[in-house]
Amino acid sequence: MLRRDYENQHCSIAATLELVGERWTLLILREAFRGTRRFDDFQRALGIARNVLQSRLERLVEEEIFRRARYQERPARYEYRLTEKGIDLWPVLMALMHWGDRHIHPGMEPDVVVHRGCGGEVTGHLTCAKCAAELTAWDAEALLGPGARPDEGRPGEPRRRPAAALTRA
Amino acid sequence: MLRRDYENQHCSIAATLELVGERWTLLILREAFRGTRRFDDFQRALGIARNVLQSRLERLVEEEIFRRARYQERPARYEYRLTEKGIDLWPVLMALMHWGDRHIHPGMEPDVVVHRGCGGEVTGHLTCAKCAAELTAWDAEALLGPGARPDEGRPGEPRRRPAAALTRA
Repeated sequence: MLRRDYENQHCSIAATLELVGERWTLLILREAFRGTRRFDDFQRALGIARNVLQSRLERLVEEEIFRRARYQERPARYEYRLTEKGIDLWPVLMALMHWGDRHIHPGMEPDVVVHRGCGGEVTGHLTCAKCAAELTAWDAEALLGPGARPDEGRPGEPRRRPAAALTRA
Repeated sequence: MLRRDYENQHCSIAATLELVGERWTLLILREAFRGTRRFDDFQRALGIARNVLQSRLERLVEEEIFRRARYQERPARYEYRLTEKGIDLWPVLMALMHWGDRHIHPGMEPDVVVHRGCGGEVTGHLTCAKCAAELTAWDAEALLGPGARPDEGRPGEPRRRPAAALTRA
């Protein structure tokens, strides 16, 4: 059984963190996006304890974020490759990187991720699927979705907020 | 002193996770984006142990992701408000949510975040700052940035990769 970190949270952010929110997991994924595939290479690049790396990789295979692929016959050796589900985590890593670039290493970014061949920097945008406006947190609101539990309310309603939240200064 | 989780990682992703990668921290931030500001409201919404909540909030104030603001005089009571630095974490939360919506709750999203007033769903894009193309992980490559350490190589060079990574199938 998987450990449940956020049992009473019915939310896609919590659900995602259940799978990739453990210490080291997102850095293992970062390494995979840089092209790392093999246990010893992950270990060297991250300086992570081998037992921790092993348990994180197993969990990621279980969740089909990585698949194991044999790269040697005798003895059998395997490498870890991102699945499509894993590749879809790229925007999470880019969002974390952009925030760190801006707030921790401004002007001194350790890495720059660019459009291969073109050389332009990769930048993130959140836009409205209907009117295409570029959005900030201030422009958005959270509504209950089709998977909301009945006790939360009906899809399309705002999430019930604690009273304090309603008195924004 | 702050605990350093990823000491030998010189990288904006690791640096960001040092600040927001602890268990519960990203869900506390999610609550703040929903409008929660007060200790008891965070506690109720998350079902988190009070000592854990306290230590996470303190850390977030230390890092200027939240600021404490007094909302009552006698006795003095404080609430926690997102700073601009904190608000800039919104794309991280949206990227986590979009992945969970797609891979864990497809068609049954617990929440839908929409453009206020317009109603269109918020969607994420990664684009090239130079040619404006929409990019996937396959279109991008990581180069050393202006803040790369001398032992890593020169800015603009690809990160040195383990040999195995160079033999992509």
